[in-house]
Formats: sequence, C-alpha cells, structure tokens
Amino acid sequence: MNHEKYMQRCLELAKNGLGTTYPNPLVGSVIVFDNKIIGEGWHQKAGESHAEVNAINSVKDKSLLSKSTIYVSLEPCSHFGKTPPCSDLIIHHKIPNVVVGTVDPNEKVAGKGIEKLRQSGANVIVGMLEKQCLELNRRFFTFHNQKRPYIILKWAESADGFLSPQIKKEQKPVWITNAYSRQLVHKWRTEEQAILVGTNTVLADNPQLNSRDWKGNNPIRIVIDRTGKISNNYEVKKGKQPTIFITEKENFVSVENCKPETSIFGNQLAEKISHFLFQKGIQSVIIEGGLQTLQTFIEANLWDEARIFKGNLLFQQGTKAPTLTGETVKRTTILNDELLMLKRYD
Amino acid sequence: MNHEKYMQRCLELAKNGLGTTYPNPLVGSVIVFDNKIIGEGWHQKAGESHAEVNAINSVKDKSLLSKSTIYVSLEPCSHFGKTPPCSDLIIHHKIPNVVVGTVDPNEKVAGKGIEKLRQSGANVIVGMLEKQCLELNRRFFTFHNQKRPYIILKWAESADGFLSPQIKKEQKPVWITNAYSRQLVHKWRTEEQAILVGTNTVLADNPQLNSRDWKGNNPIRIVIDRTGKISNNYEVKKGKQPTIFITEKENFVSVENCKPETSIFGNQLAEKISHFLFQKGIQSVIIEGGLQTLQTFIEANLWDEARIFKGNLLFQQGTKAPTLTGETVKRTTILNDELLMLKRYD
Repeated sequence: MNHEKYMQRCLELAKNGLGTTYPNPLVGSVIVFDNKIIGEGWHQKAGESHAEVNAINSVKDKSLLSKSTIYVSLEPCSHFGKTPPCSDLIIHHKIPNVVVGTVDPNEKVAGKGIEKLRQSGANVIVGMLEKQCLELNRRFFTFHNQKRPYIILKWAESADGFLSPQIKKEQKPVWITNAYSRQLVHKWRTEEQAILVGTNTVLADNPQLNSRDWKGNNPIRIVIDRTGKISNNYEVKKGKQPTIFITEKENFVSVENCKPETSIFGNQLAEKISHFLFQKGIQSVIIEGGLQTLQTFIEANLWDEARIFKGNLLFQQGTKAPTLTGETVKRTTILNDELLMLKRYD
Repeated sequence: MNHEKYMQRCLELAKNGLGTTYPNPLVGSVIVFDNKIIGEGWHQKAGESHAEVNAINSVKDKSLLSKSTIYVSLEPCSHFGKTPPCSDLIIHHKIPNVVVGTVDPNEKVAGKGIEKLRQSGANVIVGMLEKQCLELNRRFFTFHNQKRPYIILKWAESADGFLSPQIKKEQKPVWITNAYSRQLVHKWRTEEQAILVGTNTVLADNPQLNSRDWKGNNPIRIVIDRTGKISNNYEVKKGKQPTIFITEKENFVSVENCKPETSIFGNQLAEKISHFLFQKGIQSVIIEGGLQTLQTFIEANLWDEARIFKGNLLFQQGTKAPTLTGETVKRTTILNDELLMLKRYD
C-alpha cells in the first residue's frame, strides 16, 4: 500500500474546508480497497458530518468496508460532540485497517480514539505524513496548544520598502499591488477567522475588510480604535460583517454587528489582544496593518506567518515597512508584484 | 515507500535472534535510502548491540543516513541499559524518518523513545505491521504485560488419541512421531527459555530435555517431582543444563546445575509455577507432558499455544490425550505425522 499517496489525498480533501470548519479542524479521509479509492470525504462545516462519516457514506458497496483501509488526516474522535464518535462508526463497519496522520491535541480525544480502535482489534498506524498533517491544521493546533490564535501578518510595500508614500492632503489611497494580488488577499481573508487593523489604516484607507472578490466567508473584523476616532461613516462600521472595536471610548455607539471591547489597553497590548481573541474562540487572525499595529505584534514576537507583497512603484519617502526575519516558505511573483511568505523561526 | 515490505524484512531479521536474546525482545531493523536497503541488523544477544546499532553500523556510506528512513520492529529505547539509548543514536546520525512496528511495553521505554525522536524533529510513524510485531515478541509481551511466562503445551498422540499405550513392564518408550518431527521439537526447545515436565514423564521416558538435534541453546529444565521419586540416575539430573526441581522432598541432593525449589505445592499449582517462573525472569516455557502436568495447566487456562503431533499408530487403549479447543493457527504434515498448532482463544 502506498500510504503516503493516500494520506496526501486526505490532505488535499481536507483543504477544501479551509475557512468554513471553525472551530473544528480540517480533516480529510479516503477509503481504499484493493489499492483503489472507493470513498472520500472531508469535514465541511462545524456541526455537520466529520470527514470519516462523509467518506464512509460515499462508499457504494458497504460490504467492502470490512476489507478496506481508512485513511484520516487527524485521529478519529472518541467522544460525543455534535455528532457521534467516528471511532465507533469505524468499529461498527468493521474497517480493519486505520491509518492516522496525527493525534488530536483536543483533551477529549488525545489518543483515546486510537486506543479505542486498537482495542477493537483494528490495525492502526499513526504518524503518516504527520508534519504535513500538523501543518494543515496549524491554526487549530496553535489555538489549542498555545492558547492563542494563529497570527498572519500581511502588508504590501513599495519597491523601495515603504508601506505608504508621504501623505498629501485629500490624497486617495495608493494601490501598491495589482488586481490579482488583491484578489489573492481576498481569498486569504476567507481562510482566516478574523482580520485585524489599527486606527490609522481605517482613517487612511477606509477599507471594507471583507472578501468580496472571492467566494467564501467574511472574517470577523477586529479594529483597534483606542480613543474612538473612527466615526460611523467608515466602511468598517457598515454592513452585516461581525466587527469588534477594541476601544477605551465610553458611550461607544454600537451599530449593527459592531460591538466594543474595552479594558484591554496598557502594557503588552499584543498579548492582551491575543488572549482576548483566544477567549472569543478565534483560531486565526490576519493582521493587515498599519505599521504601528504590525510593529506591536512583531515586537511581542506574536506572529506565525508573514505575507509580504512588494510592488514596483518607488515612493522615495513615506512610512517605512517593518523589517522582519523568518524562514522563507515561498517566494513568487504575481505579474509585477513579488510575494514573499515567511514563517517565524521556532 | 513500501513501508510494509521493509517492516516485513525487519520481522525476518528479528526472528534470527529467537532463543538467544532472552531477557531482551527480538528486534530487527533496516535502513532504506532511495528505495534501496542500505543497512540491516538484528538484536543477537542480551548485552550486545541492539538492532538499530547493528543496522546503522552496517551502512557503508554514513553520509546517506541523514537522508534515509530507519525501520525498526520495536520502539527504539530511550534509557541507558547495557548499551546507550538507540533513540539518541538515531538523533545523532540525523536520520529524518523513523518507522516503528510497535511501542515497547517496558515501563522504562513505553512511548518515551518515540517522544524523544519526535521532539528532535524526526518524522515518526508508529504501528506499521503492529500485529505481526506484537506476535513476534509474544513471549516478551506476555511476560511483561501478564507477569507470567508464555506457555506452550506440546504433546504427541496416537492416531486414536492416546498419549501412551497401556504400559507393560520393562517396556521401552514408544515413539509416536518420526525423526523429523522429533528434530523439529529440538528446534523448538532452542527457542524457549525453559522446558517443563512432570514426574511420570521422567520415570516413564527418562528424557534428556535438551536440543541435541538442533544448533542452539538448551532450555532450562523444570521438573516437577513433589515427593522426590526421581533418583540421580535419571538423565534430567545429568549434564550441565541448568535444572530446577519443584519438590517438597527434604534433604534433596543437589547435583551439578540441579537445584530444588520448595514451597510451591498446594492449590493453584499452575498459577504458582507460573509465578515462580516469572520471578526467575523466565519469559517462555514449553510443557512436554505428561497428562497430569498438561491437564494442570489446561484446567487453570494457563497456556498460550498448543503444538500437537498425531502419529499413525493405533494404541487402542492407554492414557488418553487431553482434549483442547483453540484457534487453529496451522495444520500441516511431517511425512506421516500430522501437526496441529492451536492458539488459546482470548
């Protein structure tokens, strides 16, 4: 059996759920009989069926299950959540071989699903493409293991390293990147649970912070507005997208889907925001600037990934982009734009 | 990668150590680079190198290790025993991929070796051909998990189910099985740590209970002789083979390598003998009769395997062989002899 090949397929399937499974992890599953895939599934949405259930249900001839191998990128659950335990379902169908990508860090599962399967007499292999399976759910694992969201920094800078040019009065925002890069950013926004910006970015660019150029969910907007400079005319206070204002302003006027969160400011702002997002159950956040907000998280070493666009304009003067070192994960171009993706060193 | 194929090879290699590794388990290891085996090893003898060490040492070009996969049928140890920890050696050589058959039940290891490897950054897959790896070390696992030796019952019966014909005075022992079957029994004796018989078998057959017809170790002889009927003229009291007499006889005359063990008799004889053998560190015992001894262990349900020869003689009357039910593992013939191998139902 080419275990890696089938686990690779689980990973591909699992990724289809990115952005729609929160607070659940991404999981893919395939069922193989006689070296052919006879069933596939992935977890699509919290509250709906788990990957294993979808894979089992997709098998036409259920009598083959008792001679098959089920691959699943994450340990099958052993507890009753919104659905019955998947390990019980596997045992019920007498699937004799189970190949698991990685153990579930969730305390309710953590090895118990595997133990239950082994006790039922199944052959269980654990750790197949484990690093890829951990990487797939880096948001989920960071949230559970580190008690904070997975943090992605995103910015665009000019060819000479400025976030924005020197501001002239009444000037419209300058687009550093091309339309394709901006569409990619909208795709990214569908993948994360929240998006965060600081006051100056709202005042300067009046962004909507949604994902209108891609199919998918809009992230929860988190806006830092300590003294309440952002009036109700700004886009971040409009629409139905859930929005949290981190502010000290008393008598904050809530508009539809827009709520204030006070009592966060003071020292260690990045840590406090992280902790607040963890408490709200937010597993991932993409921070789209500006300089002060990015710098706050960089100085606290509270980030996991950085995605940096470099356009081909020269600003010559203006706001310098942050400097950041990390492991280069990817370096690519989108037409004239350069895209650099970094991972924080452990 | 065909993980099963390479783990199968580990199992083959490991079996070479059967009978010489006590009290250690059987372990095999292969190292694979670019889909070719570049190193192999197995654990040969307690106190000597572990399988992984032998496999690593057998690799000519050590620079390949950092791009290879090591397969090992049992979790690499993480503690200092008679040799340094194998997990450290794997980490030292930067072998990036480790495929393990089964976790070591030994409390000093039990998952710690795997944990150490994972923390070092290695990809670790656990459970490859796990059932076969557990089966390979069924003696070791029974000893550690059940705190008793692995027990094999062996007897030969006539075609009509008698252990022995009606005894005539001065009659010589009757061979039920042919020379090839008897040679196979000598091979089996090299594989187990001890051999056990009752008083009547010694008095009737005067066996040597060694493995003179096969290359390998002689098992420790365990002889039940409650009242001391076996004089120093019998073969079991001769030679250098370590021998323990389970007896109540006071002033037992020890001869070379032959020691008495008293204070065992009473109720639950099979349990007491098992416990005694466990305390002596004996991981396996083959019980070669006679009826009373076999029956004692069968009635206590203290057995794991039975190996029953059926010859083609008809005795018509005599001592009836035990009746035993179990899962048939193998049924074969050795010339005219039938051989039936049973496993106790769980």
